[in-house]
Amino acid sequence: MSNPFAAPSRRNVVTSAAGLTLLGLASAPALAQPPVLIPAPLPSWNEGPNRQAILDFVARVTREGGPDFVPPNERIATFDNDGTLWAENPMYFQGLFAFARAHELASKDPVLAQREPFKSILAGDQAAIAKFGEHEIAALMAATHAGMTTEEFNAIVRRWTETAIHPRFQRRYVELVYQPMLELLAYLRANGFKTFIVSGGGVDFMRVFAESAYGIPPEQVIGSSGKTKFEIRDGRAVLIKQADIGSIDDKEGKPVNIDLHIGRRPTAAFGNSDGDLAMLQYAAGGPGARLMLIVHHDDAEREYAYDRQSHVGRLDKALDEATQRNWVVVSMKRDWRTVFPAR
Amino acid sequence: MSNPFAAPSRRNVVTSAAGLTLLGLASAPALAQPPVLIPAPLPSWNEGPNRQAILDFVARVTREGGPDFVPPNERIATFDNDGTLWAENPMYFQGLFAFARAHELASKDPVLAQREPFKSILAGDQAAIAKFGEHEIAALMAATHAGMTTEEFNAIVRRWTETAIHPRFQRRYVELVYQPMLELLAYLRANGFKTFIVSGGGVDFMRVFAESAYGIPPEQVIGSSGKTKFEIRDGRAVLIKQADIGSIDDKEGKPVNIDLHIGRRPTAAFGNSDGDLAMLQYAAGGPGARLMLIVHHDDAEREYAYDRQSHVGRLDKALDEATQRNWVVVSMKRDWRTVFPAR
Repeated sequence: MSNPFAAPSRRNVVTSAAGLTLLGLASAPALAQPPVLIPAPLPSWNEGPNRQAILDFVARVTREGGPDFVPPNERIATFDNDGTLWAENPMYFQGLFAFARAHELASKDPVLAQREPFKSILAGDQAAIAKFGEHEIAALMAATHAGMTTEEFNAIVRRWTETAIHPRFQRRYVELVYQPMLELLAYLRANGFKTFIVSGGGVDFMRVFAESAYGIPPEQVIGSSGKTKFEIRDGRAVLIKQADIGSIDDKEGKPVNIDLHIGRRPTAAFGNSDGDLAMLQYAAGGPGARLMLIVHHDDAEREYAYDRQSHVGRLDKALDEATQRNWVVVSMKRDWRTVFPAR
Repeated sequence: MSNPFAAPSRRNVVTSAAGLTLLGLASAPALAQPPVLIPAPLPSWNEGPNRQAILDFVARVTREGGPDFVPPNERIATFDNDGTLWAENPMYFQGLFAFARAHELASKDPVLAQREPFKSILAGDQAAIAKFGEHEIAALMAATHAGMTTEEFNAIVRRWTETAIHPRFQRRYVELVYQPMLELLAYLRANGFKTFIVSGGGVDFMRVFAESAYGIPPEQVIGSSGKTKFEIRDGRAVLIKQADIGSIDDKEGKPVNIDLHIGRRPTAAFGNSDGDLAMLQYAAGGPGARLMLIVHHDDAEREYAYDRQSHVGRLDKALDEATQRNWVVVSMKRDWRTVFPAR
């Protein structure tokens, strides 16, 4: 899998020591070499109050001796994934994975192929698929996300990330990550932040690509989860994925899981929908400087435009509260010079 | 709270660049200064096959190009806490905290003082306390571990760690950590390992002292947990601790939670009781070099001696399996030069 981090614009920013110095990394050593021309931080962000709010926040929390200084071990930044770090249309990508996997399974299994919801999926019957209810979704998830070891599931997801192609953009899904957010992740990390994903998506699904796509290791990915069962198989300990839900990491579930997994209040939180509101409120509830940021999808030309009426990624109450409380609301159209990494 | 990490014997090992080099940290720069005399790694461990097994394992997984090389991001080490990193007698220290807190609450509340289990606790009625069943324990836990914000609970635990004294050793509980294990944690970290606690103890209880006592940040502490509820109180988002149990991080719950929180199989796992067996089996189930280690409490003089018949920290099945599979079984008596940090 190619790494979106390797996009030239990003490489220029963070892989040289001089770049790290410009990014404000306190511990970067003084350089003996002559200065080289390095782009400013967040090169894919247009100048303006939103980019400036990010830079100001980071300057405040990293200024030693300043009133808003936050020690590095307390610099926690939490990011939603779907719609915040990568796209979420025409449906959550994990849903597309589940459909693709169900198609694959049903095409090899004549018994499954005659059973719903697999019959409609195999036939590509969009009208029937649109009517899927809780029962069909549960059957779909059980067949595609359970009944195998965690390692077997990871291998299936990995193959999908390497081969599946988005219908509109004709790129692999892991390439539909937002270049400005990759730069923001790297900028925060260069300034001592530990970056976490806190998403309604499946934790094990996201972990397969989060490290290569975002530089976020598995242990810093929090998400919805199914239960697993410990077993000894052929003398070897394994975990078997069960169909039962363990935790839904959405809305109030986000701060609850942040406390369970991280145990600190985030200093900065990033989302794009009402599902992120409780996480943003939780970040805002701590002392000192905080950064709450919402990505507003208002760019139908380069990506998608949706907010208050959308079924996926509805942004309504959180948009009102962000406006009232003066949180950063990023306009993809105005604030982002580019959306996806260069090919 | 004083930091056990500041014990002179440990400072000598890990805070100088030369010490880091001796510890085998691959990225330590070549030094221009003349060499200084530095103790060997794990100074509180006696020479012998167990200390050597640790050194050999670390050498194998860090040798670049070698057959057992493990990339740094996959070097995950998980440690049980009670009986592995600190003592667990005369009862789990968290139990002692709960009793002390119940005593404190009942002494200020005449209604509570008349009710069980608080009446017996206030009277110090050891016979009645010894007969406490599920009902009394649940009431004790609800009163001492629930009905407050996570931040209020942390402050209560912090005060206890600063003031409560162990009856036999006459030291604060956070000082009853095992010096050889502190050195092992530091040695592994110096060799690129990320160290985690995976304990049956309460995750929020342990997080209060894990960073100062062990150098393990809250987000690398996994434990048993109660549920929490998200609320807005006086305009501020908080989490309220509930009496309902979320997860028991013991036995099969350990590998299940390792997968949920870390998402990787540990390369090395450390425990002391049958409650750790599933975690050790899970670590052993991965490919390549693995280290599974059990601390055997056989030192009644300097600490405690207990194993197959003990109610706290019973070590029976895990001792048999460790012997069969040639895991490291540490004898506190023979392998450890000292038990607790110097005062």
